[in-house]
Amino acid sequence: MALKGILRPGFIQLRVLDMDEALTHYIDRVGLNEVSRSDDGRVFLKGWDEFDRHSFILREADQAGIDLMAFKVDSDASLNDFTRRLNAYGVATDEVPAGEQPGVGRRIGFTIPSGHRIELYADIEMSETHPAIENPMIWPVEPRGMKATRFDHALLYGPNLNEVLDLFTNVLDFSLAEYVDTPDGKLAIWLTVSNKAHDIAFVNHAEPGKFHHAAFFLESWNDVGHAADIMTHYNISRDVGPTRHGITRGQTIYFFDPSGNRNEVYAGGYTYYPDNPTRRWSADQVGRGIFYYEGELNEAFLSVVT
Amino acid sequence: MALKGILRPGFIQLRVLDMDEALTHYIDRVGLNEVSRSDDGRVFLKGWDEFDRHSFILREADQAGIDLMAFKVDSDASLNDFTRRLNAYGVATDEVPAGEQPGVGRRIGFTIPSGHRIELYADIEMSETHPAIENPMIWPVEPRGMKATRFDHALLYGPNLNEVLDLFTNVLDFSLAEYVDTPDGKLAIWLTVSNKAHDIAFVNHAEPGKFHHAAFFLESWNDVGHAADIMTHYNISRDVGPTRHGITRGQTIYFFDPSGNRNEVYAGGYTYYPDNPTRRWSADQVGRGIFYYEGELNEAFLSVVT
Amino acid sequence: MALKGILRPGFIQLRVLDMDEALTHYIDRVGLNEVSRSDDGRVFLKGWDEFDRHSFILREADQAGIDLMAFKVDSDASLNDFTRRLNAYGVATDEVPAGEQPGVGRRIGFTIPSGHRIELYADIEMSETHPAIENPMIWPVEPRGMKATRFDHALLYGPNLNEVLDLFTNVLDFSLAEYVDTPDGKLAIWLTVSNKAHDIAFVNHAEPGKFHHAAFFLESWNDVGHAADIMTHYNISRDVGPTRHGITRGQTIYFFDPSGNRNEVYAGGYTYYPDNPTRRWSADQVGRGIFYYEGELNEAFLSVVT
Amino acid sequence: MALKGILRPGFIQLRVLDMDEALTHYIDRVGLNEVSRSDDGRVFLKGWDEFDRHSFILREADQAGIDLMAFKVDSDASLNDFTRRLNAYGVATDEVPAGEQPGVGRRIGFTIPSGHRIELYADIEMSETHPAIENPMIWPVEPRGMKATRFDHALLYGPNLNEVLDLFTNVLDFSLAEYVDTPDGKLAIWLTVSNKAHDIAFVNHAEPGKFHHAAFFLESWNDVGHAADIMTHYNISRDVGPTRHGITRGQTIYFFDPSGNRNEVYAGGYTYYPDNPTRRWSADQVGRGIFYYEGELNEAFLSVVT
Repeated sequence: MALKGILRPGFIQLRVLDMDEALTHYIDRVGLNEVSRSDDGRVFLKGWDEFDRHSFILREADQAGIDLMAFKVDSDASLNDFTRRLNAYGVATDEVPAGEQPGVGRRIGFTIPSGHRIELYADIEMSETHPAIENPMIWPVEPRGMKATRFDHALLYGPNLNEVLDLFTNVLDFSLAEYVDTPDGKLAIWLTVSNKAHDIAFVNHAEPGKFHHAAFFLESWNDVGHAADIMTHYNISRDVGPTRHGITRGQTIYFFDPSGNRNEVYAGGYTYYPDNPTRRWSADQVGRGIFYYEGELNEAFLSVVT
Repeated sequence: MALKGILRPGFIQLRVLDMDEALTHYIDRVGLNEVSRSDDGRVFLKGWDEFDRHSFILREADQAGIDLMAFKVDSDASLNDFTRRLNAYGVATDEVPAGEQPGVGRRIGFTIPSGHRIELYADIEMSETHPAIENPMIWPVEPRGMKATRFDHALLYGPNLNEVLDLFTNVLDFSLAEYVDTPDGKLAIWLTVSNKAHDIAFVNHAEPGKFHHAAFFLESWNDVGHAADIMTHYNISRDVGPTRHGITRGQTIYFFDPSGNRNEVYAGGYTYYPDNPTRRWSADQVGRGIFYYEGELNEAFLSVVT
Repeated sequence: MALKGILRPGFIQLRVLDMDEALTHYIDRVGLNEVSRSDDGRVFLKGWDEFDRHSFILREADQAGIDLMAFKVDSDASLNDFTRRLNAYGVATDEVPAGEQPGVGRRIGFTIPSGHRIELYADIEMSETHPAIENPMIWPVEPRGMKATRFDHALLYGPNLNEVLDLFTNVLDFSLAEYVDTPDGKLAIWLTVSNKAHDIAFVNHAEPGKFHHAAFFLESWNDVGHAADIMTHYNISRDVGPTRHGITRGQTIYFFDPSGNRNEVYAGGYTYYPDNPTRRWSADQVGRGIFYYEGELNEAFLSVVT
Repeated sequence: MALKGILRPGFIQLRVLDMDEALTHYIDRVGLNEVSRSDDGRVFLKGWDEFDRHSFILREADQAGIDLMAFKVDSDASLNDFTRRLNAYGVATDEVPAGEQPGVGRRIGFTIPSGHRIELYADIEMSETHPAIENPMIWPVEPRGMKATRFDHALLYGPNLNEVLDLFTNVLDFSLAEYVDTPDGKLAIWLTVSNKAHDIAFVNHAEPGKFHHAAFFLESWNDVGHAADIMTHYNISRDVGPTRHGITRGQTIYFFDPSGNRNEVYAGGYTYYPDNPTRRWSADQVGRGIFYYEGELNEAFLSVVT
């Protein structure tokens, strides 16, 4: 294979204030499928177009936000290799034993300079409701609600973006697809480990470990419009959109789950290759970079995080 | 970077019977941009969303068809490595010196068991009209005609599919995304070296070196419909579509250039990862695999090639 | 009001061979809603975006086909006026008393020269699930299946098209939007009583009273593609499409209900005004007129009717 | 014919501060076609899908805004009839002789209680570039820019909405499709004379004769998104959108011409019939009625007019 090492965002674990409300939101409205619940109360979900057992995990807690984001690597050998490279770089790692999440093998965890916990793992069971392999139909069953196909990426807020960038590009083999350049340094960075325009992104923020949004991939601008119809119909709190990002070119809506965690539905985006030049946004154009049609940031973009 | 070795289909060179007619077709209707013409009469073209200098080459000749398809690799070291692996596998390679195509470095060429010439290269100049890097707009100028964004993939016809498959997966690091399984062996294979559902595909065919189609990527099903409007308006010969492939899930139209070379406009398609299982189509379902809505092959699919 | 007399296709009554299969088709797949069942076994349905109580009626019988198509007129005075004009023109009318269909007032029925029964009525109850009137949402509930918004029009086959045209334009105040002109006379006529490109159409056919298709309106070309996905998923017999009509410009799929009655999903179509010139299609261009992309009729178009 | 009396918005005449800038905007960006220029400097434009000679008129002046909006009626007899009804109602009319606009017959003009000049006319030449009548293609030439198909409707601001409503419904035969109901009376009314959800609308405003926007019809939500891409690309001042109206259900962007006149691109919208109930919006829901996704008015909506 030609895609090696870290393959994709594997799963994210978010904290929600009320699990029942959260499940109505993510299952009935966003369109994820429930996979299982663990004894400690976590609920495991996935999009209809994902082969892996789960990709989105909810945990009830007193405060919303992110527990961790994990990436799937291509092999156990890669997992060992990344562990060595992280340790050699000076990043301490711990190991979560296989089975802590149902169907998931051992995970290597570490804290990045922005204050977030990142994990890597090589093994996860295939979903019982994965896309068909023998003479597949387009979808196993008609998608529901906003028709989320997969957990696509996350945007995290925290300090030390230069260190985060160095770690992701030099140790974890990500590429810097785009960044916002200001006189005070990089305001934001978009990182990819694939042909997607981004797999994870960061915005500079004083408080570490904060969560801006988790994005679900939709198939088209039409589905983005349909998602907006659903948001108004069910009185889901919308932040901004339907609009487009200049950065990544994705078509988008930001909205909130009942606990205040921001979600995104995202369609399109260009095809990235590692020999593409990094795209640079100057401080005076960042508004158009984030919200291509509005040409300016809304107040919430830089301030509302969980 | 995490995408290593062969990155993508870099360019394809097709033979056309009348260059002026071909340029009207590919520039005014398909929407490619002309880059340059060489002294030997070749014309170099590209899609608006490609960074490389060119991706589509036309050569006037007495017979339509394909001269070669070339893949861009990530580095000169990879180029040397693939050369060694090809030779060790028993495939003879030749070297085309830098500059044989304007702006392109040395190329390693070889003939695969289906009778097609494949080339690899590591260096190509960046296009003068590449997508912007500083505060980019969505497109440099409004796309034209069918709004082709890039040369996306090709489907080739020839014998010895098992050998082709072995070469592409074991020497060139491609993955087999899907195949059609018949009692007489594999009828067709879809190979990818990226997150695209396919970068090149082959159908079993007695005569070697034949060309089925070159595909141009469009952004949406709406653009596919718009392309169909353009085909009728300008009396472009259409083969089939708008329809959808069960294989890759792409939304599609097959049509012909004035020389009889088949083109495709293609949108959508799933996101592939190398740990996805290979999808298998049985002989009795191949019709739905190729043309999801029609459920059967049209007569031209297996017989009309150049 | 400025739209006077006949307002729209009000309902159509079709015969089906198996009611359960028919209801699965029209409710679960096409997306109509069931309104009620009468003691004689008829089932009354409607699209989600219709105010009237019902618009689509199924009756179980030994043979598929059409019982009648009815138009809603703006007032009882208009109903009397049309009755007088029909009788004066030499068309015999009968009256179906109020209540023969639940919630529908008296209907005036007559046979047109193509052998079809047409009815007019002024009164029908408003649906209990009509689009909201107070602070309406876009839809009352998320549309289902192919997301049919309404019964839109029908195409009927029968003889005596000149007489049908004269009756519809001179007595019933329709306009001729388009027609196919052949050396043997009009092959087909598209008639409208509104801003829609057609409300009813006829194709010349030796056998009287035949049914070609009933069409359901969809909101977009994207919904047409989604409908095609549903057809393949549920193994619904498809005739042709997704494609486009040159005539009316509508985007379309023809398919069949389990009894063999042809359905259409239809989106787009131009906005017609009665001062628009009638569009004429010559015999050699009728293929493009019916199927704009294919440029020729398929065999079923002129021969398969119920 | 069944559509009688007033058929449609025929043309609107706007004042612009700089004709060259205005023409770049309306022709190159919005996609209208120039028809002719008159000796007094007016420029006559039309959308590609209109049969009439022109539908959009620009006049250079010191102040932006609206000169007049005119409706086409079905016949000279209707023109006389409306004149009689207006006069009997107490509205003074004047007559603009045939030829004052090139290709347009005599026009009956009057001032409505909101302070706007409205005209009626029965005769206008057919455009030389009208949609084809013999074996028509979907479009005469590929649409350009935002691909405006026609001048669709206008929203006007002024006082005396009750009187305006009475005049339009009782004298001019319009229907009230929707209105915003507040404790202080009707804030806004949407009036239709066709199957369109609105042909003209009014918002209550102290100053008479003000102009809120003229709308151009697009074919789809995809074209609305494309229009937004064009606005950012060419730095066109955008007011709000892409979004949707709860009222009419249209998909929309508000933006400004270089003189500050607001434009709208508008797609979709429900099919109206005169027997539909009038939809009522309460004061607390007007935000969602105007901007369905945002759920609230932006500051400009009620204040920025020309």
